[in-house]
Amino acid sequence: MREIKVGIIGFGTVGTGTAKILISQRELIKKRTGIDIILKRVADRDLERPREINLPKGVLVQDAWEVIRDPEIDIVIELVGGIHPAKDFIMEALKNNKHVITANKALLAEEGNDIFNLAKQKRLQVGFEASVGGGIPIIKVMREGLVANKMLAIYGIINGTTNYILTKMTDEGIDFQDALREAQNLGYAEADPTLDIEGIDSAHKITILASLAYGIPLNFKKVYCEGITKITAQDIAFAREFGYRIKLLAIAKILNGEIEIRVHPTMIPENYLIAKVDGVFNAIYVEGDNVGATLYYGRGAGSLPTGSAVVADVVDIAKGNGLIPIDFSEKLSIKPVEEIESMYYFRFTALDRPGVLSKISGVFGENNISIASVIQKGRSKAGAVPLVILTHRAKEKDVLRALQTIDKLPVVAAKSVFIRVEGQES
Amino acid sequence: MREIKVGIIGFGTVGTGTAKILISQRELIKKRTGIDIILKRVADRDLERPREINLPKGVLVQDAWEVIRDPEIDIVIELVGGIHPAKDFIMEALKNNKHVITANKALLAEEGNDIFNLAKQKRLQVGFEASVGGGIPIIKVMREGLVANKMLAIYGIINGTTNYILTKMTDEGIDFQDALREAQNLGYAEADPTLDIEGIDSAHKITILASLAYGIPLNFKKVYCEGITKITAQDIAFAREFGYRIKLLAIAKILNGEIEIRVHPTMIPENYLIAKVDGVFNAIYVEGDNVGATLYYGRGAGSLPTGSAVVADVVDIAKGNGLIPIDFSEKLSIKPVEEIESMYYFRFTALDRPGVLSKISGVFGENNISIASVIQKGRSKAGAVPLVILTHRAKEKDVLRALQTIDKLPVVAAKSVFIRVEGQES
Repeated sequence: MREIKVGIIGFGTVGTGTAKILISQRELIKKRTGIDIILKRVADRDLERPREINLPKGVLVQDAWEVIRDPEIDIVIELVGGIHPAKDFIMEALKNNKHVITANKALLAEEGNDIFNLAKQKRLQVGFEASVGGGIPIIKVMREGLVANKMLAIYGIINGTTNYILTKMTDEGIDFQDALREAQNLGYAEADPTLDIEGIDSAHKITILASLAYGIPLNFKKVYCEGITKITAQDIAFAREFGYRIKLLAIAKILNGEIEIRVHPTMIPENYLIAKVDGVFNAIYVEGDNVGATLYYGRGAGSLPTGSAVVADVVDIAKGNGLIPIDFSEKLSIKPVEEIESMYYFRFTALDRPGVLSKISGVFGENNISIASVIQKGRSKAGAVPLVILTHRAKEKDVLRALQTIDKLPVVAAKSVFIRVEGQES
Repeated sequence: MREIKVGIIGFGTVGTGTAKILISQRELIKKRTGIDIILKRVADRDLERPREINLPKGVLVQDAWEVIRDPEIDIVIELVGGIHPAKDFIMEALKNNKHVITANKALLAEEGNDIFNLAKQKRLQVGFEASVGGGIPIIKVMREGLVANKMLAIYGIINGTTNYILTKMTDEGIDFQDALREAQNLGYAEADPTLDIEGIDSAHKITILASLAYGIPLNFKKVYCEGITKITAQDIAFAREFGYRIKLLAIAKILNGEIEIRVHPTMIPENYLIAKVDGVFNAIYVEGDNVGATLYYGRGAGSLPTGSAVVADVVDIAKGNGLIPIDFSEKLSIKPVEEIESMYYFRFTALDRPGVLSKISGVFGENNISIASVIQKGRSKAGAVPLVILTHRAKEKDVLRALQTIDKLPVVAAKSVFIRVEGQES
């Protein structure tokens, strides 16, 4: 029986899950593939921390280079995270003629072109199924399952932390800070939650999916990225009144040969399947020109789900083939966010005086923004009331210009809020 | 550039979609894979029927054997449907050392063991992505994406016709016959809808998924199969009152080393994602021991979606490798439906007299069936009222025995109805 030897660098959450699966499913994988996959070495700086798995003697080592430079090891699995030294480990592994697997979305999104170029030159594989959507085999689906499709659009809920927070806010009417604290207590959010709540993690992941979909180089810096910290319980409640849910969506689409890649809170019609993806779960909606609408759902993080994706890559590479070589050399321009078109939700804090709506709608008219519906709610002691407007499709640049004017109106008492809206135009 | 030549037998709906895609995406696939896939021949008995695509001169022929015996053709795509002569075409193609792709679930479920055995012996591939879930790459997901998982359970909505009918009945409160007629008018149901509405098409498909999941031979004859013809608008309304939706589910699961494979109308909690899959769409929920809950959603039929799946198989085989050889030799027993356990919904037509509930619940008690909740509705002129009961988990065999007794009670005016219920026990 053919043997493949693998080494893991990084024995944290995903490293532990991957090691567990390689050991527990070794017989099953043998039966399914005819290949014996042997976990030869695991490297981690911390040898002492108790883990949920006991490796055979001699497998756990402290020095990553004992994995990278071991001539017996065929596949190096990088699970340390961060840019450095993770990138050095991967580049050196490729130079040593080893296939590489990584779950490191930040590294791929920011420095992945170097990695994929070197791998292509050395005719080696880089597996990255675990970098997006945890256990959901979305990379395989896009590269292979939908290979006969031009990808028209991708809409992803690809960060479990923010989806958990938004679900809590929606279900319980609580504010962002309270939902965040609860997520932290449950271990769904980190002590420093910046990468998640500011949308950066989602932006890393949609960078990768967009390159896969359109064959373009990884271009994290051109991705528009807006987090969920400014979403209020009030906006969520208004969204519900209009029949929408607010989700942090990562979007990639192509329109007239130009690509949009962006991450921002988005209002989605509540009867869309992706609007119903709640809690820490992830889902990616992919629309192909032939297949039409498809959706993939599962756990976007966690030791064993992510390990499941890593081991799927191991098996693919162990089979020696079957992976289409990655070529990210397509030249397509990425639109700045000011150039996009969308529908919009606005919440204005308006002084409760006659003529406010007429003033605001006047500014909209001057900027080619057409109103679809309005909610104006009661009276407030302070004299300021929320005025909520949904628009038809408009240009983002017109919206920004209109807001500059509106926010200076004497009848507007606070900075205005807007959220982009997806769905069929009504 | 490497060239692969393919031939299609059957130029109907899926054949046309496949041909279209092979032609329209030829350059895209070249770019993505480095392989030039050439549609060399299409065979169909009917050369005259107008189709949405004009094949180059000489491609369309009448005789299937011109595809099967052409020494230049590497891959034969069987899209004629039915058992014979489809099986003969496939067996002969394999004997001629050609890889085979088929969308023919009936053939695979009923005669697939012969086909897979011959393919294994000849070391050839049989691609069947298009046989289940149309454009959803569920076969690839299960064989490759989730290769590191034991499959704990599969729940599929894998027949678009019945899902359309049940959705119509649910949304509009109409009866089965009216919804069926509407499905037929829209082309979602055939003139003879038996295969769909009796659950046979779903049973064919779950036979294939169960073999993939558990490595067992295809065993259509052991699959329990019950259609949707007896579902009434009344049962759907009661289900809604309890917070459930009724879907035709295809289920495969393993419990204590024994496998259950069954198709029947099923009540699912309305907050489950799969309960929200409506219209002609399909979805397959797959639970793996490592990945946990996952779900795959898309169009289960149609010319281009199904063609997308066929062409994905073409590309996989064209790469010359990458597909794990199918081995369906695992020996696991399949439980007869009488041996399963489930929760149950019952609707009794009871005469409106005191003591009815006590009599029925008495029979339940004698048969180890424990009641979870009851709805008894008003009075009827005829003196008979529906009495609806949800039970905790019970043995099907106890349920059948109890019903025999209950249906003979003088207070019961019509044959009782039961529907199996999935979800967390309350």
